[in-house]
Amino acid sequence: MPTAAILSQGDEVVTGQTVDTNAAWLAEQLTDRGLLVVRHVTVGDRKPDIAAALRALAAEADVVVCTGGLGPTDDDLTNEAFAEAFGAPLALDEVALADLEAKFRAFGREMAPSNRKQVLLPRGALRLDNARGTAPGFARVHEQRLVACLPGVPHEMRAMYLGGVVPLLDALLPAAPGRLVTLRTTGLGESALQDRIGTFVHPDAVLGYRARTGEVDVKLRFRAGASDDVVRALVADVAARVGGAVYGVDGLDGKVGSLAEAVAAALLARGDTLAIAESCTGGGLSALCTALPGASAWFLEGCVTYANDAKVRRLGVPAALIAEHGAVSEPVARAMAEGVRAGAGATWGLAVTGIAGPDGGSDDKPVGTVHLGLAGPSGTEHRRVRLFGDRHRIQALAAHTALDLLRRRLA
Amino acid sequence: MPTAAILSQGDEVVTGQTVDTNAAWLAEQLTDRGLLVVRHVTVGDRKPDIAAALRALAAEADVVVCTGGLGPTDDDLTNEAFAEAFGAPLALDEVALADLEAKFRAFGREMAPSNRKQVLLPRGALRLDNARGTAPGFARVHEQRLVACLPGVPHEMRAMYLGGVVPLLDALLPAAPGRLVTLRTTGLGESALQDRIGTFVHPDAVLGYRARTGEVDVKLRFRAGASDDVVRALVADVAARVGGAVYGVDGLDGKVGSLAEAVAAALLARGDTLAIAESCTGGGLSALCTALPGASAWFLEGCVTYANDAKVRRLGVPAALIAEHGAVSEPVARAMAEGVRAGAGATWGLAVTGIAGPDGGSDDKPVGTVHLGLAGPSGTEHRRVRLFGDRHRIQALAAHTALDLLRRRLA
Repeated sequence: MPTAAILSQGDEVVTGQTVDTNAAWLAEQLTDRGLLVVRHVTVGDRKPDIAAALRALAAEADVVVCTGGLGPTDDDLTNEAFAEAFGAPLALDEVALADLEAKFRAFGREMAPSNRKQVLLPRGALRLDNARGTAPGFARVHEQRLVACLPGVPHEMRAMYLGGVVPLLDALLPAAPGRLVTLRTTGLGESALQDRIGTFVHPDAVLGYRARTGEVDVKLRFRAGASDDVVRALVADVAARVGGAVYGVDGLDGKVGSLAEAVAAALLARGDTLAIAESCTGGGLSALCTALPGASAWFLEGCVTYANDAKVRRLGVPAALIAEHGAVSEPVARAMAEGVRAGAGATWGLAVTGIAGPDGGSDDKPVGTVHLGLAGPSGTEHRRVRLFGDRHRIQALAAHTALDLLRRRLA
Repeated sequence: MPTAAILSQGDEVVTGQTVDTNAAWLAEQLTDRGLLVVRHVTVGDRKPDIAAALRALAAEADVVVCTGGLGPTDDDLTNEAFAEAFGAPLALDEVALADLEAKFRAFGREMAPSNRKQVLLPRGALRLDNARGTAPGFARVHEQRLVACLPGVPHEMRAMYLGGVVPLLDALLPAAPGRLVTLRTTGLGESALQDRIGTFVHPDAVLGYRARTGEVDVKLRFRAGASDDVVRALVADVAARVGGAVYGVDGLDGKVGSLAEAVAAALLARGDTLAIAESCTGGGLSALCTALPGASAWFLEGCVTYANDAKVRRLGVPAALIAEHGAVSEPVARAMAEGVRAGAGATWGLAVTGIAGPDGGSDDKPVGTVHLGLAGPSGTEHRRVRLFGDRHRIQALAAHTALDLLRRRLA
């Protein structure tokens, strides 16, 4: 399997001022073509470090993609480092210079002398045009191996990768991407999933896990050429082992991106609508829903009834119920769900009340105690859970657990 | 200057399924203590690659921090790779095992056999307790140099770094961090800020920018020994150049973490309360507020009035107003703010209505059009803004812009 490596360069990346989204984007692109990405390296704006990294990665991987360091300022050193690494002296590229001058004219600006260094390209390298910015990139093809240098600005980098690097890769290493199927799950941790699935060894597929807040993806990457029957049988087998925690399968017959998407699809299919009453999640449960384009087709309203008085006034929760059981209790969760459902005229009313912490817990109701209520056409159900983590995590998990209660009811 | 390197491991990172936010966070922490971060490396779940990277980085840098690969599954290989890299055979750590078993008991769950591998630690390594999750980390101190292995889950990693690694670093390499003062700003982009501040050259300080959604931090890093007078004078100078976009200064006389924190502090100081009515932000504005511990002292309620009917019923917005001007309009934003203020009996009513996209825009009201209303003791004000980006970004920017309207009114 051909291998790839990614080099990011820049003081702003190595010191953590910028999160390196370029590396992740490139890695996904390269992986999707069937390349095995073996390494990312990030170094600062020091020429010897860049040159050494280019040399080491070019020796290790079939394809090396480098981002950053093509700008006009003193700390932009990629072309000089490349020249040093591969013994390819820099020379002025007349076509690139004409293009750069034309771009400045089009902006109505004078080209600064410092921009000339951007069109000094290593001898023997292929120029990669920059459709989105000033600096051209360049690539070296040597013994069927590729080293490409792209700008660091993400949208320029992506356009140059797609327009300049992909054609080179198509010529050198025709894509053999295999197939990726993702089982999206919620409600089980990574180790609980692994215990259910057991050891997975199969000649046609590799299995991996990816945890997100409140959700874990089980990823099956099939080798190129695995038959559709094999893919479906293996996916069905793994899904059966996991059970009801699977809320969607992505990459088999369609796309499922998140738990909220799965709930939205189920509501839309039935023509149902949803109203939410939330306390400890503080708007986060509604936000999970309204993050989806087109949410207005099924999401009617949310009530962030943080104060007790708001629960009474907005949702019609009897004040006596709160006084007797406390705001974080089964009767209040039920009354919130029924109240918001009735008020909004929705098919479903979903309610969350709990203690997100760090304060407010007690022996009886420790931080992380959450009561969920779901009111629907055939009555109201309740669930109590205990969640762990800091405030942010408890809020996020509570929102996911509430959505999952609805998802299972709709299933 | 002592050097540091960061190793991230995991197929999900090297293949680009996950953006590596851990590396950026760690790089910033290490830089802030005065270490020179020279390199980040990412490798997949292959033991020889991890071991080779650990060895190479430990030879290159004084401090190496590794994240990921401490979980219970077969692809979690960090302890084995570490053992191989440094000739430190694995042994069961009884304290860690007892801690792990206690955690499972507290969750009311059976510990799976696969979890036992998490407490096999390299001989001679220091155990780093995991306050937030199951897997302990570990660290090796050898000839005044440190290699620390932390979990990949961000909140576990951060807690372990702060609680376990920082004390070790304090002992090995007392921080000479100088002093970091951050001006937190909102409402201006990075290049607009740069234009206002101009060229910044000073023997005692370096200036940098860090953009977050809807906010930009202006960071002034002072050399160790810079006098308090110099620090205050420079901070005041930069703040004056930026103007009203500065909502707080962190590291001078106190801590200001976010725009919501600044608003919360201002409300608390006045004994004021807030109620929110939001449409296009869908709960996100309320969630920004309720993310703060103790929000119940000033946040009364939020109404996510997504459907027009909810605006009428919950907030008393006249249906005729919506029919005449549309839901995304100045009169409706004002009526929403006044309605939620009156209903909740809050000092302030803050409302947002807009078009987050990707659909729903028109020539007259393109995607990104947002109307804000703020009702208070002395009347109601309105602001119309045009925001740019995808749905997620428009929602986040709209929530920040609304909070900033309130912040400026309270100032």
